[in-house]
Amino acid sequence: MTTYEAPLDEMQFVIRELAALDTLTALPEWRDIDAETVNAVLQEASRFASEVLAPLNQTGDQRGVICKDNHVITAPGFREAYQRYVTSGWNRLGFDEDYGGQSMPNLVGAAVQEMWKSANLAFSACFQLTQGAAEAILQRSTEEQRKKYLPAMIEGRWTGTMNLTEPQAGSDLAAVRTRAVRQEDGSYRLFGQKIFITYGEHDLAENIIHLVLARTPDAPPGVKGISLFIVPKFLVNDDGTLGSRNDAFCLSVEHKLGIHGSPTCVLSYGDQGGAVGYLVGEENRGLEYMFTMMNVARISVGLEGVAIGERAYQQAREYARTRVQGRDVSGSDQSVPIIRHPDVRRMLLLMKAQTEATRALAYVVVAARDLAGHHPDEQIRQRNQAFVELMTPIVKGWSTETGIEIASLGIQVHGGMGYVEETGAAQHWRDARITTIYEGTTGIQANDLIGRKIARDQGITIRAVLEEIRAFASQLEAQDASLLSIKNSLVQGADALAAATEFILTSFQADPRRVMFGAVPFLKLFGIVAGGWQLARGAKISAARLGEGKGDPAFYKAKIATARFFAEHVLAIAPGLAHAVIHGGEVDGLLSDDQL
Amino acid sequence: MTTYEAPLDEMQFVIRELAALDTLTALPEWRDIDAETVNAVLQEASRFASEVLAPLNQTGDQRGVICKDNHVITAPGFREAYQRYVTSGWNRLGFDEDYGGQSMPNLVGAAVQEMWKSANLAFSACFQLTQGAAEAILQRSTEEQRKKYLPAMIEGRWTGTMNLTEPQAGSDLAAVRTRAVRQEDGSYRLFGQKIFITYGEHDLAENIIHLVLARTPDAPPGVKGISLFIVPKFLVNDDGTLGSRNDAFCLSVEHKLGIHGSPTCVLSYGDQGGAVGYLVGEENRGLEYMFTMMNVARISVGLEGVAIGERAYQQAREYARTRVQGRDVSGSDQSVPIIRHPDVRRMLLLMKAQTEATRALAYVVVAARDLAGHHPDEQIRQRNQAFVELMTPIVKGWSTETGIEIASLGIQVHGGMGYVEETGAAQHWRDARITTIYEGTTGIQANDLIGRKIARDQGITIRAVLEEIRAFASQLEAQDASLLSIKNSLVQGADALAAATEFILTSFQADPRRVMFGAVPFLKLFGIVAGGWQLARGAKISAARLGEGKGDPAFYKAKIATARFFAEHVLAIAPGLAHAVIHGGEVDGLLSDDQL
Repeated sequence: MTTYEAPLDEMQFVIRELAALDTLTALPEWRDIDAETVNAVLQEASRFASEVLAPLNQTGDQRGVICKDNHVITAPGFREAYQRYVTSGWNRLGFDEDYGGQSMPNLVGAAVQEMWKSANLAFSACFQLTQGAAEAILQRSTEEQRKKYLPAMIEGRWTGTMNLTEPQAGSDLAAVRTRAVRQEDGSYRLFGQKIFITYGEHDLAENIIHLVLARTPDAPPGVKGISLFIVPKFLVNDDGTLGSRNDAFCLSVEHKLGIHGSPTCVLSYGDQGGAVGYLVGEENRGLEYMFTMMNVARISVGLEGVAIGERAYQQAREYARTRVQGRDVSGSDQSVPIIRHPDVRRMLLLMKAQTEATRALAYVVVAARDLAGHHPDEQIRQRNQAFVELMTPIVKGWSTETGIEIASLGIQVHGGMGYVEETGAAQHWRDARITTIYEGTTGIQANDLIGRKIARDQGITIRAVLEEIRAFASQLEAQDASLLSIKNSLVQGADALAAATEFILTSFQADPRRVMFGAVPFLKLFGIVAGGWQLARGAKISAARLGEGKGDPAFYKAKIATARFFAEHVLAIAPGLAHAVIHGGEVDGLLSDDQL
Repeated sequence: MTTYEAPLDEMQFVIRELAALDTLTALPEWRDIDAETVNAVLQEASRFASEVLAPLNQTGDQRGVICKDNHVITAPGFREAYQRYVTSGWNRLGFDEDYGGQSMPNLVGAAVQEMWKSANLAFSACFQLTQGAAEAILQRSTEEQRKKYLPAMIEGRWTGTMNLTEPQAGSDLAAVRTRAVRQEDGSYRLFGQKIFITYGEHDLAENIIHLVLARTPDAPPGVKGISLFIVPKFLVNDDGTLGSRNDAFCLSVEHKLGIHGSPTCVLSYGDQGGAVGYLVGEENRGLEYMFTMMNVARISVGLEGVAIGERAYQQAREYARTRVQGRDVSGSDQSVPIIRHPDVRRMLLLMKAQTEATRALAYVVVAARDLAGHHPDEQIRQRNQAFVELMTPIVKGWSTETGIEIASLGIQVHGGMGYVEETGAAQHWRDARITTIYEGTTGIQANDLIGRKIARDQGITIRAVLEEIRAFASQLEAQDASLLSIKNSLVQGADALAAATEFILTSFQADPRRVMFGAVPFLKLFGIVAGGWQLARGAKISAARLGEGKGDPAFYKAKIATARFFAEHVLAIAPGLAHAVIHGGEVDGLLSDDQL
């Protein structure tokens, strides 16, 4: 069994120094919250993650879930842990106080989410789905629906799901076929099959509130004819008690590569006369509603990349410190812990630097979301909203791609032991592999980035970000070799990103295929430049703190060294990626489908 | 169930055009072999791989092996398939005719091996281990030992194993503790435990010949006190029949991430009084003998990277052609097969281009091995031997790292279905993950490359290779945009490799830690430059064939487009990797072990 300890110092550094928690706690919304409160929340969450969730991570992987007679039984220990999660009030953290929530900034919620995901990714999916479903109801439902469903969901007594995918409708939701027929009482009856439904059925809570995309009989074709419905597993009486079992059943669960503890269900609606559903908002606007939530969900999945990276890094570091093998390359006959070997150090630093870069970027984006939602100044809200929208596909796509790479390095550090399942290193890699797929593949993220966030925006937001990066780099005084390297790499990276961006803006209209061919390399380029920027900001602040003689010098020195490593080993490939974006698209037209 | 079809046209192109089969068949050793014979062998092997081995790939993954009472039972169908493999004579292919072999060039053997590995990686390990053990006996044993063990091993009636690893001795074989005590009759008794023994026990063949590293009581410490022993599972009588069961038993098998069909055994020697063993060659030279074979084994593992890449690519391409989802980015309301989407094409090309690059390099190196072994001119033998030694860690390290990346892309092309185990895409990724670990991790390969093959060689061989690459690039007439791009990228790549090489040669003595810190980035840099070189050679030949109006124009056009894709998307990052090698090592000294 492997352990997990939240990197609290690092999280606090990012929350306070890079994501500017004090700017948030100065807002009316969060005036009652101070750094001490946040500290206490993170401490408690850390303990819960280490003591309750982390010990069940391997259990979930090894025991998986059992589906029998439409019921799903989760792994041993999951029910008890879920009860502790609910009674400890963790599910309330980010929600509106009006419905029983605790109204913490999303920035704090992001750190807590990261802990849950590091500790037990498969388990954490249940919390996240409930949160997403509750958000949708909060934003789009009637007050009556909110009062009926939200308190129990926010408490965690009931969980939630998102039902999008059907066998013929994966990335392309225009192809959704599930039918919803309006009844005389204003409710609907749903008929159809949904697949890949995370926690679509389980034994953790007394009710499940499904949010389901479906078509009414007279809906227009394509994405403009899809509506969103609340379909409870058990109907809810007016007094809040549970009524009859609805006609929504789990047929089977998938046998997956990873996240075995998380049931991925095939759900059948309406086999026995129709599943009772209630329209959310207006008919035919379901996809629009879903997309609002999806951006939040995408950042959450981005945090999964960070979380798996952290967990894999902790495990590899521990192994490297204790496994004795081989002699020091500098000479001596003594065997040494493998952490002394240059390539093992390089791998650990690649894990550490990339985890810190993805975390810093994700938290900064979440803080911008908080500002976009709650700052009194309209202009500041808009500017932050534009930043969040631009960066969401990068946080999702780049952090998850990077998380898989980090988990793979974690196996490599273990050598042969990494290939043995009992060690636990391989589980992180298998678990991580879903993160670049669900909530929109990396390709979907990259298309969103280029099509909606850059071309449609005519480059306004990305140019502003580039300007900010360059202004920051120009102010980065090169006091020592490390800061100089960081500065040079960041300037070179920003130049590469700017060149690729201009190529996209000038070519997208005339030749969208050619531009889209480089979408994923562009997303990765943007990711490493944005991540390098955040690490460089951290290095600058660390240098200042060292100069002031404040805090732990070892911590700040490590921040600078890590940023430098990232600059030399990761950011250095930025020009190569820009080359692929700008020059790589012409190949697309040279090969027919048959020649592939 | 997924299918496999050997890429015969591509293999023939590489064998004939890049690896110059005719140079080999002109040698006395292979005078009886012509292109027709080779063609027939490849055709037959392709059929055997598709019909016999490939259908058992998923069976092996799902059923695994069972270890009970010291016996190992392989997956259903494996026994029958192994029998067909033996009776078809496939095991004899590369061996000396004197002991029942067919004496084919290794170049042909490499293509056949690739097919076995693509079709069923877990199964193919059994053949490969037998081959390695037989090679060791052939090269290092007495004629008496050869006559006793080789005919049955070459036929395939008996299999072989390599016993190196012990719990405390993984990458560091100096730590081997298994004891071998000499007896009055000249034999030895062995005592100790070996782990990670591939096909250390199984039910496929009637006997298993273990090759075991152990120490005699008076041996010097470290690597200079290790000897190599033949330890048969059943002792062999003088008439070749099987005698009594030896004291070597399987205690358990590992529960692994992948290659479930291949038993990875814990073997215990001497629990019941001592396992009978016979010294190979001289005492204390075991590691030296093992290293000779290890180079061959490393190229074989490199071919596993190629093979998994090919298999994953075939499966992803098939899925992309048949899965209909989303609309063409260029417009139109029709749903299209996902192969039309630019990012899916990019992924497929990244799979195809890297598979072809790793294959071309591996086959060229194997052909050089054939020349090194059999060319009548001593100078040519030496030059080729130096080339093989330089390139072996690259074929092993780069092809396997790339194979994992390709298998991951294969999952990504499948979207959510890629995460469902039944689809089969995930198995390739899990199976591939061992290849960067066994037979020496990528870090070990990179250290070997820098320490033994470049620094100790004072850069003579690598400089000659660089000169050859540059001479080739200068002759590459840029007839069209693709050849021009290929030429420019190759020149830039060679410059980057040259700069990194000079850094290594000037800094290694003074600061080996700093140089070794960049060993793996250097290995990858060398890999992409060498692979890009081979693809560029293929593009040049293809342009010539197109000019001559020979062969299938679609095939040659695809070769040129694929080489161009590799140049723009892969080779383009060469300068970034060189930067990491040259500037990235200083970070090593900035962090203590505690700060990692």
